[in-house]
Amino acid sequence: MTVSREVELEGHIIDSGMMQACFGIVMDLGGSFEVEAFDIGRSETAESYARMRVIADTESELRSIVHELHQNGANLSDPVDATLEPAPADRVVPPNFYSTTNHPTEIRHDGEWLSVERIEMDCAVVIDPDTGSGDTDSSNAEARACTKVLNAIEAGDLVVTGEAGIRVKPPERPRGREGAFGFMQGGVSSERPTQSTITKVAEAVAETKREGGSVLVVPGPALIHSGARDDLARLVREGYVDALSAGNGFAVHDVERDLYGTSLGVDTETLDHPRKGHKHHIYTISEVIRAGGIPEAVASGLVGSGVMYECVTRDVPYVLAGSIRDDGPLPDTITDAVRAQEAIREQAHEADLVLMLSTLLHSVAVGNCLPSDTRVICVDINPATVTQLLDRGSAQAVGLVTDIGTFVPMLAEELLEE
Amino acid sequence: MTVSREVELEGHIIDSGMMQACFGIVMDLGGSFEVEAFDIGRSETAESYARMRVIADTESELRSIVHELHQNGANLSDPVDATLEPAPADRVVPPNFYSTTNHPTEIRHDGEWLSVERIEMDCAVVIDPDTGSGDTDSSNAEARACTKVLNAIEAGDLVVTGEAGIRVKPPERPRGREGAFGFMQGGVSSERPTQSTITKVAEAVAETKREGGSVLVVPGPALIHSGARDDLARLVREGYVDALSAGNGFAVHDVERDLYGTSLGVDTETLDHPRKGHKHHIYTISEVIRAGGIPEAVASGLVGSGVMYECVTRDVPYVLAGSIRDDGPLPDTITDAVRAQEAIREQAHEADLVLMLSTLLHSVAVGNCLPSDTRVICVDINPATVTQLLDRGSAQAVGLVTDIGTFVPMLAEELLEE
Amino acid sequence: MTVSREVELEGHIIDSGMMQACFGIVMDLGGSFEVEAFDIGRSETAESYARMRVIADTESELRSIVHELHQNGANLSDPVDATLEPAPADRVVPPNFYSTTNHPTEIRHDGEWLSVERIEMDCAVVIDPDTGSGDTDSSNAEARACTKVLNAIEAGDLVVTGEAGIRVKPPERPRGREGAFGFMQGGVSSERPTQSTITKVAEAVAETKREGGSVLVVPGPALIHSGARDDLARLVREGYVDALSAGNGFAVHDVERDLYGTSLGVDTETLDHPRKGHKHHIYTISEVIRAGGIPEAVASGLVGSGVMYECVTRDVPYVLAGSIRDDGPLPDTITDAVRAQEAIREQAHEADLVLMLSTLLHSVAVGNCLPSDTRVICVDINPATVTQLLDRGSAQAVGLVTDIGTFVPMLAEELLEE
Amino acid sequence: MTVSREVELEGHIIDSGMMQACFGIVMDLGGSFEVEAFDIGRSETAESYARMRVIADTESELRSIVHELHQNGANLSDPVDATLEPAPADRVVPPNFYSTTNHPTEIRHDGEWLSVERIEMDCAVVIDPDTGSGDTDSSNAEARACTKVLNAIEAGDLVVTGEAGIRVKPPERPRGREGAFGFMQGGVSSERPTQSTITKVAEAVAETKREGGSVLVVPGPALIHSGARDDLARLVREGYVDALSAGNGFAVHDVERDLYGTSLGVDTETLDHPRKGHKHHIYTISEVIRAGGIPEAVASGLVGSGVMYECVTRDVPYVLAGSIRDDGPLPDTITDAVRAQEAIREQAHEADLVLMLSTLLHSVAVGNCLPSDTRVICVDINPATVTQLLDRGSAQAVGLVTDIGTFVPMLAEELLEE
Repeated sequence: MTVSREVELEGHIIDSGMMQACFGIVMDLGGSFEVEAFDIGRSETAESYARMRVIADTESELRSIVHELHQNGANLSDPVDATLEPAPADRVVPPNFYSTTNHPTEIRHDGEWLSVERIEMDCAVVIDPDTGSGDTDSSNAEARACTKVLNAIEAGDLVVTGEAGIRVKPPERPRGREGAFGFMQGGVSSERPTQSTITKVAEAVAETKREGGSVLVVPGPALIHSGARDDLARLVREGYVDALSAGNGFAVHDVERDLYGTSLGVDTETLDHPRKGHKHHIYTISEVIRAGGIPEAVASGLVGSGVMYECVTRDVPYVLAGSIRDDGPLPDTITDAVRAQEAIREQAHEADLVLMLSTLLHSVAVGNCLPSDTRVICVDINPATVTQLLDRGSAQAVGLVTDIGTFVPMLAEELLEE
Repeated sequence: MTVSREVELEGHIIDSGMMQACFGIVMDLGGSFEVEAFDIGRSETAESYARMRVIADTESELRSIVHELHQNGANLSDPVDATLEPAPADRVVPPNFYSTTNHPTEIRHDGEWLSVERIEMDCAVVIDPDTGSGDTDSSNAEARACTKVLNAIEAGDLVVTGEAGIRVKPPERPRGREGAFGFMQGGVSSERPTQSTITKVAEAVAETKREGGSVLVVPGPALIHSGARDDLARLVREGYVDALSAGNGFAVHDVERDLYGTSLGVDTETLDHPRKGHKHHIYTISEVIRAGGIPEAVASGLVGSGVMYECVTRDVPYVLAGSIRDDGPLPDTITDAVRAQEAIREQAHEADLVLMLSTLLHSVAVGNCLPSDTRVICVDINPATVTQLLDRGSAQAVGLVTDIGTFVPMLAEELLEE
Repeated sequence: MTVSREVELEGHIIDSGMMQACFGIVMDLGGSFEVEAFDIGRSETAESYARMRVIADTESELRSIVHELHQNGANLSDPVDATLEPAPADRVVPPNFYSTTNHPTEIRHDGEWLSVERIEMDCAVVIDPDTGSGDTDSSNAEARACTKVLNAIEAGDLVVTGEAGIRVKPPERPRGREGAFGFMQGGVSSERPTQSTITKVAEAVAETKREGGSVLVVPGPALIHSGARDDLARLVREGYVDALSAGNGFAVHDVERDLYGTSLGVDTETLDHPRKGHKHHIYTISEVIRAGGIPEAVASGLVGSGVMYECVTRDVPYVLAGSIRDDGPLPDTITDAVRAQEAIREQAHEADLVLMLSTLLHSVAVGNCLPSDTRVICVDINPATVTQLLDRGSAQAVGLVTDIGTFVPMLAEELLEE
Repeated sequence: MTVSREVELEGHIIDSGMMQACFGIVMDLGGSFEVEAFDIGRSETAESYARMRVIADTESELRSIVHELHQNGANLSDPVDATLEPAPADRVVPPNFYSTTNHPTEIRHDGEWLSVERIEMDCAVVIDPDTGSGDTDSSNAEARACTKVLNAIEAGDLVVTGEAGIRVKPPERPRGREGAFGFMQGGVSSERPTQSTITKVAEAVAETKREGGSVLVVPGPALIHSGARDDLARLVREGYVDALSAGNGFAVHDVERDLYGTSLGVDTETLDHPRKGHKHHIYTISEVIRAGGIPEAVASGLVGSGVMYECVTRDVPYVLAGSIRDDGPLPDTITDAVRAQEAIREQAHEADLVLMLSTLLHSVAVGNCLPSDTRVICVDINPATVTQLLDRGSAQAVGLVTDIGTFVPMLAEELLEE
């Protein structure tokens, strides 16, 4: 005696690997299947469709298989509602809570599929059954599903548990060169045509801006040390940067360059190492503290150039997230990791394209909050860093193993001379 | 017309590079000198002595030269007191404050040289003129000098400014193989005899313990992923670890291994990737939050093995410092970077030997607080990480480019089978 | 008006990615297809079967598609013979020659599928129509297909050209843990459980030996520098190494350790740097030249231990391939790259399992000659090296990012204490 | 009873570390010394002078100390002649032969100091007592000293042995920014101001050309893959490259780009991966073999652009050295490592400035033949490669951790727009 259920796959199910993944899941979990229908897209952009019957020995095995298929994009023809359980206490989820992926996700509630708002990975999903105030006649009209990180859970929150009534739509990696992001294939390597790739990145940034999208830049202090500060400042000034997510060190060295002409004590133009240069960063911190913060230092005329200066002057919002290796920190730095994550989360959900420039810590923090369909460009000279950042199931991530000290100037030249 | 002053150098002034540095400083800063006496140590351990007259065109040039010589270990025969200025406000230092190195430092106050307590780099030095309560007749008997990080400065603190009255004793790298730390020469390389080096590291750890010293271990999550968890747990259990400085992720994966047999979803013994394995870390966090924290989870029997378990069971103090890339975090994690730094600072000043194991972030945070004469062993598979960690002016730092997944087991075997 | 042909796929066509690749090829090349039959294997080891009709606008387009499908493992129901053209001169192939992959390949000749002997990538295929001497009545009974590198082509060789009559069977990566090689999933990373992986590698080596297979070791000089020489020597002595493929430098430092106790001047046990140690390698070369070569140096008693000593003593064949960075070279080193490649090619085709230990140059040279179904284990501390070595379409390649100085000792312990 | 001898040091003996090295040697080898005179240079460019008496317990100990001091630049006031012994057979040196450093070296013969010609490391020194044909009355007027690699030694060659009568002048690293090469301090890091450094490199190249010097470029295939081919070709065309030292792969991919528009199958402009692209390199080899070689392929019009094309067209001499990982090879490639080394040696001794661009193998081969005072610029994206290349005792070596795909275009722009 076996049990079975019918599931459907739609979209670029071959190119995206969805079909292979689904077949593999069935076999891994001890089931079997029959392909009942298979319509292949006739053109590059046409979508395909497959319907298959999944067979298992027990209802519980079947449920597990079907859940995993859901997680990989397969849909059930006869879906059920998700199970909800109230959180027993603040910060405490019900035992069998559903932990999110970063892919677009829907929760079935009262027979309706609710899109999960602010999707990001490793969160719980909380259902708000009726957010309307006095809107009593339409019981579920206002029901919403939203992610919550574990430490934001409040007692009584209705948390999705188990495996039923959840469906996930992993992004499809479309064949060919549709748009500016179809240009990267294969793994991470430093042996790629750098200039041509920078041209493509510039096109993706320009396209995002043309379409009214928002560009989030996540730079590390190496950007300043490697001499690319003025070019990033130009990009901010010219409106290519809508938000900046960095750390205390980035801001310190950016301002150090303004106050002392150095970055970590090295004159980035002459390459001189002036006497006491290794103290410039701590003097910089001291001066900014004295001024009361970066905006105050800009207002007072103390700081007159650089990335932070342009952000302040142009009202580009920034988050400076603290870390245990910070000197100072600056008054502008958010020292609490949970509060900093909240600020980063806001930035991540606003962004349409993210440029991660030579910082592993901040890039991972931003990446943790990103839905899988946000465009991401990671640039680092260390291939292991790029590999780690790309390895998050995003279909829209591009990695470049190159020198930030030449990447940013060349990107600025491409964008500003268009 | 020129001015001149006599300075002296003592110790292993040749091997340590002190003499070369001092000669270079004089020439760099436009001065000249005459060597008036030069007694070379006749044996490997004997110290040398040099006295030289430094000549400059102006008194101010001379002062700069003499200050830099001080910073590099030269002493003046006719010293003056350091200048003190009160901090104008909380967190605000006087403009010309002296920023510390990580070398043993003395401040001249009321004609006496005070050792700076809790020396670490990039701090201000605050003089407490009389810490005795009613001990009025001996005005300076109780004067003390102590470092303060910028954000700990309080209005009115007497801060050392300028360049006079400060002397620094950079560590000397003695010739030959005195003790367990004389074994590493040359730069960072993966092409070193690994097993022999691990034997030497084990000797250094054993020597530190024999002498009643304290061993601080700074491990990253890669240690758990690479399968070395049980060996580190054994070292804690057998008393080789006196304190642990880690992050949220380290503790999460250590407990994940206990609860689910995996680390980041991979079974570290069978190498299997169980289904839902990539969710184990978030389930782990959820379980520990539910228990109330790691000690509570140990007390309740939920957690029964691993590094954190041994720390709790054996009362080995630990700091879990938060970061913006943390999931959760665990209730035990200190999320505020400034508070976490304070906790790390306490650990760093207690430690006689620090083992930095595959974590750049926490190693830098600990390293920032270390005096230059604390023994440090950095282990990482990435040579750039080891280079960065060693590049802090420590004379007692040893770097190994090797795999933490074999280093810790071999170290444990060496130590536990002695 | 369209043309169409039926193709079949058999085997682990889902897990191996073959089906996805084939569907992708059709779409890339502008064709379409209909799946006519699809039988999925019901158990982990059962094979699957798919039959599909490929449709294109022109016969020439269809041919291109079908050829690419062949290259990826699909078979045609109505095959044609391959086209042969004679080589116009020595070392000169016909213009449209077929260049091989490293996968098992068959050539259709006189209606029969001939297995290509000594398959390796980037070669021409030469058909020898009748190798029998006087065997005249059976015209094609003795026809053979064999690879030839370009510089071995002789005028008149019958070279396969075009795209017809060629079929390729890419290796399938079977699901689960069949045999010792099913243990590695995912990309290259240093954050894997090292000890457990070494245990698996030891099992694979032991299994290969039990089955009468041949183990080829490809070590670099870093193995000697990192102190693993005695352990590799033990593996040779105990019969775990059937052939050795190395360079001049490996042999020099192995013998240097015997003659002077150092490797590149460093005592690999005490870590001392004896005076003149940096000259030991050139003295070693000079002594071996004086002796007449390594076997002569062993025979005369000059060399009494080490990897080369064990190879000579136990008649384990070795190739020392020269390179432009060699000192000396030793009389045993083959200095001509083409002759050295020929010697390496023989080793590669004999091997059932290849251990590549910390040498990019020699590993690539060996890898170039390997069929895709030979088991390969690559060990290097640099993840980029491991990535590059694995990126050759082999289904039986395992990469470890670890320290050769601990890997070899642990492997030896696992194998010799079984 | 002790013995003693007087030695002198002259030059930038402090900055260069010579004095520290010499003091250390005496102490390491168990001697002692007294500084008898010490005149410090009064200005940045003035040289210093020191005279010291070295004391040891035995004459033999003293000789060892004095030899090591010589090797580090100290001179003896009462020198003796070097010992010479005839080579017993071809390729066989006398047992106690002197093995060279790469520093300028002099041999005392018949009371005269002979400069060693063609100095490079790890060679023997052969004295030719009288090279004049009939010039009998002046016995030693024509005596010469020259390096020979071990495999070039002929029976009867008079080889320098022992430690006496040899003096070495290690290069001094002068303080400050004298000339274009004073700009790099500290270790290897990717966190340096890239654009400013490229400007300095361009100045060094331009200065070398202005002074009539010769520039040798050593490029790897990654240069082509990363899209910098046309810029290097421009530099050759505009006369900035006097010689090229590369491998088979570099030439293959350079010509592949000309014939097929790809490098390793990737279109370096559009980033497309054309079908069969991975076969282009083997087709390229086949076409060049068919043509008879690169010059023939240029002459016939087959090859019309690229680095090799410009070299052929402008008569820039090149060496293509073979290796065991080569495909083909091209008819132009020197497959014998010893012959290839000879060709590289000629290039190395002609060069005044060497640009090593993303190839470890060829850079080491060239570096092995270079005197320590030739200017060298190493560029690689892997810091370990740069570290290894710089670690050869050269005072004139500069390392950049950057992307060759942006370095070469920026260098070309700097040089060609001056």
